[in-house]
Amino acid sequence: MSLPDGYHGRILEVDLTTGGVQVTALEPALVEDYLGGRGLATRIFYAASDPACDPLGPENVVVLATSPLLGTNAPTSCRGHMVFKSPLTGVIGSSNSGGTWALVFKSTGYDVLVIRGASAEPVMIDITPEAARILPAKHLWGLDVHETTARLLSEAAGNKRGRVLCIGPAGENLVRFAAVMNDKNRAYGRGGPGAVLGAKKLKAIRVRGNLKTTITEPERYQSGLEQARYLIKAVPTTKRLLRDMGTSGLIRLINVIDMLPARNFQDNRHSFEELENAGGEALRDTILVRPGACGVCPLACQRHTQVGPRKGEGPEYETLALLGPNCGVYDLEAVTLANYRCNELGLDTMSCGTTIACAMELFDKGIIPPAAANGLELRFGNHAILEELVERIAFREGLGDILAEGSLRLAKHFNHPELSMTVKGLEIPAYDPRASYTQALGYMTSPTGACHLRGGYAVSLAFFGGAKEIPRFSLLQSPIAIRNMQNLGLIQDSLGICRFTGYAFGTEPWSRMASGVTGRDFSTARLEEIADRIAALERLFNLEAGVTPEDDTLPARFSTEPLVVAGQQRVVSREVITRLRSDYYEARRWDRLGRPTAGLLSKLRINGRQT
Amino acid sequence: MSLPDGYHGRILEVDLTTGGVQVTALEPALVEDYLGGRGLATRIFYAASDPACDPLGPENVVVLATSPLLGTNAPTSCRGHMVFKSPLTGVIGSSNSGGTWALVFKSTGYDVLVIRGASAEPVMIDITPEAARILPAKHLWGLDVHETTARLLSEAAGNKRGRVLCIGPAGENLVRFAAVMNDKNRAYGRGGPGAVLGAKKLKAIRVRGNLKTTITEPERYQSGLEQARYLIKAVPTTKRLLRDMGTSGLIRLINVIDMLPARNFQDNRHSFEELENAGGEALRDTILVRPGACGVCPLACQRHTQVGPRKGEGPEYETLALLGPNCGVYDLEAVTLANYRCNELGLDTMSCGTTIACAMELFDKGIIPPAAANGLELRFGNHAILEELVERIAFREGLGDILAEGSLRLAKHFNHPELSMTVKGLEIPAYDPRASYTQALGYMTSPTGACHLRGGYAVSLAFFGGAKEIPRFSLLQSPIAIRNMQNLGLIQDSLGICRFTGYAFGTEPWSRMASGVTGRDFSTARLEEIADRIAALERLFNLEAGVTPEDDTLPARFSTEPLVVAGQQRVVSREVITRLRSDYYEARRWDRLGRPTAGLLSKLRINGRQT
Repeated sequence: MSLPDGYHGRILEVDLTTGGVQVTALEPALVEDYLGGRGLATRIFYAASDPACDPLGPENVVVLATSPLLGTNAPTSCRGHMVFKSPLTGVIGSSNSGGTWALVFKSTGYDVLVIRGASAEPVMIDITPEAARILPAKHLWGLDVHETTARLLSEAAGNKRGRVLCIGPAGENLVRFAAVMNDKNRAYGRGGPGAVLGAKKLKAIRVRGNLKTTITEPERYQSGLEQARYLIKAVPTTKRLLRDMGTSGLIRLINVIDMLPARNFQDNRHSFEELENAGGEALRDTILVRPGACGVCPLACQRHTQVGPRKGEGPEYETLALLGPNCGVYDLEAVTLANYRCNELGLDTMSCGTTIACAMELFDKGIIPPAAANGLELRFGNHAILEELVERIAFREGLGDILAEGSLRLAKHFNHPELSMTVKGLEIPAYDPRASYTQALGYMTSPTGACHLRGGYAVSLAFFGGAKEIPRFSLLQSPIAIRNMQNLGLIQDSLGICRFTGYAFGTEPWSRMASGVTGRDFSTARLEEIADRIAALERLFNLEAGVTPEDDTLPARFSTEPLVVAGQQRVVSREVITRLRSDYYEARRWDRLGRPTAGLLSKLRINGRQT
Repeated sequence: MSLPDGYHGRILEVDLTTGGVQVTALEPALVEDYLGGRGLATRIFYAASDPACDPLGPENVVVLATSPLLGTNAPTSCRGHMVFKSPLTGVIGSSNSGGTWALVFKSTGYDVLVIRGASAEPVMIDITPEAARILPAKHLWGLDVHETTARLLSEAAGNKRGRVLCIGPAGENLVRFAAVMNDKNRAYGRGGPGAVLGAKKLKAIRVRGNLKTTITEPERYQSGLEQARYLIKAVPTTKRLLRDMGTSGLIRLINVIDMLPARNFQDNRHSFEELENAGGEALRDTILVRPGACGVCPLACQRHTQVGPRKGEGPEYETLALLGPNCGVYDLEAVTLANYRCNELGLDTMSCGTTIACAMELFDKGIIPPAAANGLELRFGNHAILEELVERIAFREGLGDILAEGSLRLAKHFNHPELSMTVKGLEIPAYDPRASYTQALGYMTSPTGACHLRGGYAVSLAFFGGAKEIPRFSLLQSPIAIRNMQNLGLIQDSLGICRFTGYAFGTEPWSRMASGVTGRDFSTARLEEIADRIAALERLFNLEAGVTPEDDTLPARFSTEPLVVAGQQRVVSREVITRLRSDYYEARRWDRLGRPTAGLLSKLRINGRQT
């Protein structure tokens, strides 16, 4: 079997302990079974990693993979995928980013980057088609993301295709929810990959390249492309809504369905006046400068914004909600400035917001004494302290040193772990699970902990799903619906394309484009099988890392403190959690303990680490 | 709102009691909500019919509808749909046929034909773009289907586009499973529509026309057409298998999965030697003359065959299995000749086979005494009597007069109703429900009784489903899977296209073709909603006709007599039936008594008969 088109066939392996750089061949069997992106990265990570390792030790492995569609003009085909063991959760970290860095990385002639070991001194990696080198980076250490990016691009002046991926001070300081940034404001956000690179003393990766992606069967590819373009233009969300409002338009929509969290998920009520100045409409009418787009993307959901003299991107819906109402804050400018600072310092805005919300609840309840707050009045709604808190977290100053450990370790530190709104240690996104069983189950079963994307993007399923829409509280339909949506996400992440295309279409156009590029038959059935295979492999890693069914759950708050949803008092009871979980296992063909069965593994051709 | 392209906007209404023929306007709102074919026919039937009526009385209404795609070059777009109250079941009858008759009927300038009342003397209807007339048909009464067709075409000589739909002696004699035939060998097969026309003394409908179907947005239509053609060529089943083997190729495949019934569903074991000469391979190698195709169909699953001097079509898989192994018969030629005779006399081969199997079991068990069998040795495996039995049923001679009432009335007549393999009085197709929960649930919930097509075509789901494949015994997944497959079938039947396209693709290409023809946005989400609407309306009719949850069940045999399936003893227990049923209701948003909820009806804009 030969390697199909769409790949360069080369893996760049860097060992930061030894300083070794080598190129190995990408085995054709791997792309047949794992496609690219998330699938390929998970497979290579699984074979290379030790599930028992210290995520911040040199034995942690980071795998960054691209996809066969990258380098074509397929809509939104610009995304890279990073897999690692998460220092925040102790389970698999799996993070996906837009931008253009992954595109240019692929154009240097590699499909995958594997990073092992740790350097004693700060380093960076410089990759071109001619050479891949580890370079000293002491002069960059301490610089923020924007500064680092600007410096590295100016050093490589004259080459327009240069792109920088890097960490900020948060990653250097091993903040457990530090992000890896690229193109300045695009993030591999969740699970703390910035801390993993920080522990390896890897500050940045600069890429410059010009190699093309070849398409074996242009007509087949074109037929899928035309279908995708047609459908993107046919559906209001992809045609217009995301360009007009970005993701911030969700604030109003999510509030209407009683799902927008308030004050560390204690409530879901917000007054009209509060939201009027804190949502997408206000963003559009006040701070928006222009929309922007990632590579090859016609959707253009990026928000380029300005507050006073300061410019930046965002905030996105999650940031707007979690640093906003979930902290009791309804001040768009304060949230935007805190968001800018998160991007510059290299922090995941979502875990940051929910961790601050947890601190505020601990403070409000008198559990964090005023003295411990270093003079900051940590009460809900105090928008004036947001930016300062972000700084203290990134630089681990005072109480910020504890917040830098994430919400779960923070709450445990103060002996109230029940106030941490996390699943598997990952902070919950801005959709209250009491308002939808699919949302709840997505958080419970996301391999990375409470991630709205890896968990199945339930919000699109329940509320913008069109034909896929199902009742919000269906015990019957939720497990299969979430399995299906998670599989769609696995396919999207493995193709290097964006979740938002799912508003317009599912896998069919991608099947044709992927088949056209590679000349191999990636039928929709085969893509589904690939999704099942990746899901099983992620689960195997997590089981080996110690996950049990008891970890596939929700914080007790959601089972014991009712919220009014659509006029009814709602919790996600322990009984509902138990049934959703076991039915989800069944839908995945996992056993009652959440283990992929031998029959399933055999069907998927997974044979342990040497698979 | 104006009527879109794709329709002529005219309903032909014929009252056989008064002799009145009138043309009424097709309301634009109806096509927006019900599309065409099954949807349109069901809606018009529901508004016009009395659920309490005698199916063989003049108050029964027959509605025959075409679809917007008919008249285009969309693959397989040739099918008509007929709705009526079934004299076999007492619930809705809903039957779909390929061929070319429906295409030519539409080209006369009508979208829908409504037939009311009953004539005192045999009549036929002759339809051209110039006139629609009721004509005397005494000279045709008593002729078989092939004779009637030949006679009516020769009378209309010189017009190549003439087509005939008619009943045979079985319909004239009110056999409760008499079919309506068109193009000689294509059948509106199930539920006894032939008896309904027979009771109305309507022998035939001849159509001749040349009016075209207009396409509003040719590019949009073309994009869906190209996608469909591409996928049909990409999938082995649609590219080659159906042309090579017809449906008879299923005999071997269904046997391999322990699903092929033997002797009135008493067993599922067949020896290799038995099947070697009775399956699709034998058909291909011995009696096949050539494949054939319905209108605009690239699949070509028709079998033109010859046994000695006699020529005809088929047998299809169902006929081959139900007149074959299910009667203990493994003689291809005997089954083929019986099949020819069913087509000529106008009988549903499926109900015919399963009713004969029931009679054979009654005979074997000594319940039908030899004397009552009029000299026929009715034992299982006696292939020599098949053709003779078909004759006696069609002409209601001797015991044939009781068999003509169908398996349930036959078994009741001999005081052993438990030996009738029927759901709601409709004979079960050739897939044993003990071998798959989706198959079982499909039979239970098909609105017409045990129909493999209206029930969700589960066999394609469980065994050739690719990405849609689910485990055979999943309580969790079966209800949603069957709901989804039934909805796909509702959409296909409303578009006038063939089930078999489902092996290659779902609704997406159809959405684009339907939108292109009409210039209206028939998105996949909207098609799904239309399917939900039709399913609710069919259910409302059945509820008004007296159906209760107890009717959504299986014969006791399948719960009490285990079969070995994949090495395990299997029944469909009463507990499983109860759970599948209630979960299916939930998936449909029906209440616990199987009634569409007020909320659902309101969402679907169904407001009783005047909806």
